[in-house]
Amino acid sequence: VSRLDIIELIERKRDGGTLTPDELRQVVAAYTAGSVPDYQMAALLMAVFLRGFDNDELVPWTEAMLHSGDVLDLGRVAAPKVDKHSTGGVGDKVSIPLAPLVAACGVAVPMMSGRGLGHTGGTLDKLESIPGFRTRLEPAEFTRIVERHGLVLAGQSETLVPADRMLYALRDATGTVPSVPLIASSIMSKKLAEDLDGLVLDVKVGAGAFMPDEASARHLAETMVDLGAGHGTPVQALLTDMDQPLGQSVGNANEMAESLDVLAGEGPADVVEVTFRLGTEMLLVAGVAGDRDEARRLLADARDSGRAMEKLTDVIAAQGGDPRVAADRSLLPHAPHHHEVTASRAGYVAACDAHDVGVAAVRLGAGRSRKEDDVDPSVGIDVLAKRGDEVESGTPLARVAYRDPDRLAAALPLLERAWRLAEEAPDPVPLVLGRVG
Amino acid sequence: VSRLDIIELIERKRDGGTLTPDELRQVVAAYTAGSVPDYQMAALLMAVFLRGFDNDELVPWTEAMLHSGDVLDLGRVAAPKVDKHSTGGVGDKVSIPLAPLVAACGVAVPMMSGRGLGHTGGTLDKLESIPGFRTRLEPAEFTRIVERHGLVLAGQSETLVPADRMLYALRDATGTVPSVPLIASSIMSKKLAEDLDGLVLDVKVGAGAFMPDEASARHLAETMVDLGAGHGTPVQALLTDMDQPLGQSVGNANEMAESLDVLAGEGPADVVEVTFRLGTEMLLVAGVAGDRDEARRLLADARDSGRAMEKLTDVIAAQGGDPRVAADRSLLPHAPHHHEVTASRAGYVAACDAHDVGVAAVRLGAGRSRKEDDVDPSVGIDVLAKRGDEVESGTPLARVAYRDPDRLAAALPLLERAWRLAEEAPDPVPLVLGRVG
Repeated sequence: VSRLDIIELIERKRDGGTLTPDELRQVVAAYTAGSVPDYQMAALLMAVFLRGFDNDELVPWTEAMLHSGDVLDLGRVAAPKVDKHSTGGVGDKVSIPLAPLVAACGVAVPMMSGRGLGHTGGTLDKLESIPGFRTRLEPAEFTRIVERHGLVLAGQSETLVPADRMLYALRDATGTVPSVPLIASSIMSKKLAEDLDGLVLDVKVGAGAFMPDEASARHLAETMVDLGAGHGTPVQALLTDMDQPLGQSVGNANEMAESLDVLAGEGPADVVEVTFRLGTEMLLVAGVAGDRDEARRLLADARDSGRAMEKLTDVIAAQGGDPRVAADRSLLPHAPHHHEVTASRAGYVAACDAHDVGVAAVRLGAGRSRKEDDVDPSVGIDVLAKRGDEVESGTPLARVAYRDPDRLAAALPLLERAWRLAEEAPDPVPLVLGRVG
Repeated sequence: VSRLDIIELIERKRDGGTLTPDELRQVVAAYTAGSVPDYQMAALLMAVFLRGFDNDELVPWTEAMLHSGDVLDLGRVAAPKVDKHSTGGVGDKVSIPLAPLVAACGVAVPMMSGRGLGHTGGTLDKLESIPGFRTRLEPAEFTRIVERHGLVLAGQSETLVPADRMLYALRDATGTVPSVPLIASSIMSKKLAEDLDGLVLDVKVGAGAFMPDEASARHLAETMVDLGAGHGTPVQALLTDMDQPLGQSVGNANEMAESLDVLAGEGPADVVEVTFRLGTEMLLVAGVAGDRDEARRLLADARDSGRAMEKLTDVIAAQGGDPRVAADRSLLPHAPHHHEVTASRAGYVAACDAHDVGVAAVRLGAGRSRKEDDVDPSVGIDVLAKRGDEVESGTPLARVAYRDPDRLAAALPLLERAWRLAEEAPDPVPLVLGRVG
């Protein structure tokens, strides 16, 4: 694309027009190659943000991103290959128990996860609370582990979808992140580069999600399902509640421990339920179960037999981690100090704002304010009162594990406002709000 | 403005919000200083393009541009200082006869002009067809000439409004040129940096103008008049027709010759009329004439007495040019070859598309396809049949002065389609469509 061509494309999108598949492919290729500068792509991204992409534009744009680098070849994995992606939330550790549960049912799960972003946690950060665990794998090692164990838990390879790394960094600096087509193409280009037979999406909705309302979450889910269909990969999406944190733990080591609880047949009911609902979709999309009842039975058996825990333990060992954490949680890092946040009066918990709790966790050191920050795996928040719970004045709402008193002081104002108490018990909110696919 | 602040400002404008005066000043200052990168400014410009600026935003934005570099100090010029700016057209040589006419009436005219842009011509290129004439003056020389002669005809100083040079280059590369607030702030920041007592704007409307319709031209005119008022500088704007080229000549040396014709009491009626209408506004805004009749009498006397021609001759000499061109047009460059475009049938000229004629002139070499191109001052087009003229089959429509037969061949298809002939005479179109201020 010459300099003049890209200007013409920017102008057309700016005026609400449509770019052709060939034009979109050329723009992505030229940007990745460095011949379209950041400032022209920034103008185009803002025009896309405000004017949108139609489906005939989004499919070739996403495909061009997908083919901007290497694509995995898992041809030697005989089992159906299915991954899960969450749009991100607070306390969302579901990937960690889910992946071994599904793998123990005979589905290959080549899981590529991300780090914490903004107020949301990241699966990689949680996994790295296991002493020695490596999430950065070369493609050959990634492939070898999934071929051997049917499961791998790693970060995105540097060689996959370089266009997304470049575009994401530019969007982050130019106010063009929360756009449905740009989010959908970012997620789907990475997932489709994993050589999957199916994909399940957990699209979070509510205060702690990037999509605050159900309508926009549904639109994002539909857009991603359509992109999967355009690529020939079956995609199922669930819309799940993220108004309050998922489960009890928000942090890294504490979320890892809660994940192990789920595999041990314990853990908070909401984490177990979201894990089983997503696992059911994964088994169905893989063709391993014929219906939902069978899928839940298979998942329960994988858990209750200990096969799922064994699968995770094997993969922890294969990725350099200490497999004894499965039996001994004291091997996970622990923060030196604790603080309780208590209810100032009696009532029912009407809301526990997931965004506030997420930001509080970042301030404690469980997430990053800047990309170059280190995460402290030991700090975090245990949420002790959830929506609908009745509390007395003085009842603990949260237990905070912290290292630095200044960081605790920065986190507390958010925790002190996160719980909203009411006279009446709130109406129950379903955990799974809908299904798209 | 820190990195995070600018993102928040981009997001707010993207979502249709308003930036505060202080924020706008900081963004322009930080961009000019290099601490806001091009890609963030590109995203902000696209958001402004699609969301607009309200007047409370546009005034501080323009003032911040104006103060991004030096501002002229013409404090030693006793006469009222008034300039004219045209939004650009085809055959628009009006500045050249207008400035000395007004200066000869006792108004100081510190005129800063531009070069050809796209299909439109530029006053600087036309002036440089005079052998030896220098349009690039140091600020001290610019000031000295206007102090001495009450007239100077120069390019924009490098030290004035650097923010506009940076923003214009970025807009040119990012599809964000044709935006009313961005055009208005670009023009007005430069004009208000000239230390003027008044400004007259010629906002062109029609096929050969950047504003194709009267409504958008009027909106631009109103925006610029408001910016002048915000700064305390009286501004008057005329909306004038640019559906067909102005006058007969389109090029550089031929437009210079036509400008001299006007000062000699000749020249095409439309050029004379636009010159006198704009001159009238300049004398009124300067307070040199009490009403329009008096202004026209003063201008006619400045012309008929020869004082205006003498003023121009003096300034040509002061800026290094050969003053003998005033009496001897053969000193201007002439192209070696000529070609006539003739009517293919009888009829009335219903339209002569100024955009087509302008692009044809660029292809001949009278303008630039790329910024680094040289202009050939000798080539150009004489428009021999204008709207309303009756022609026979074979009547000359245009006389093309050219050097390179390949360039003639590239220009001819545009000239062959530029004239639209009809059975009936078209309704007359007024030359001045309206007045704002």
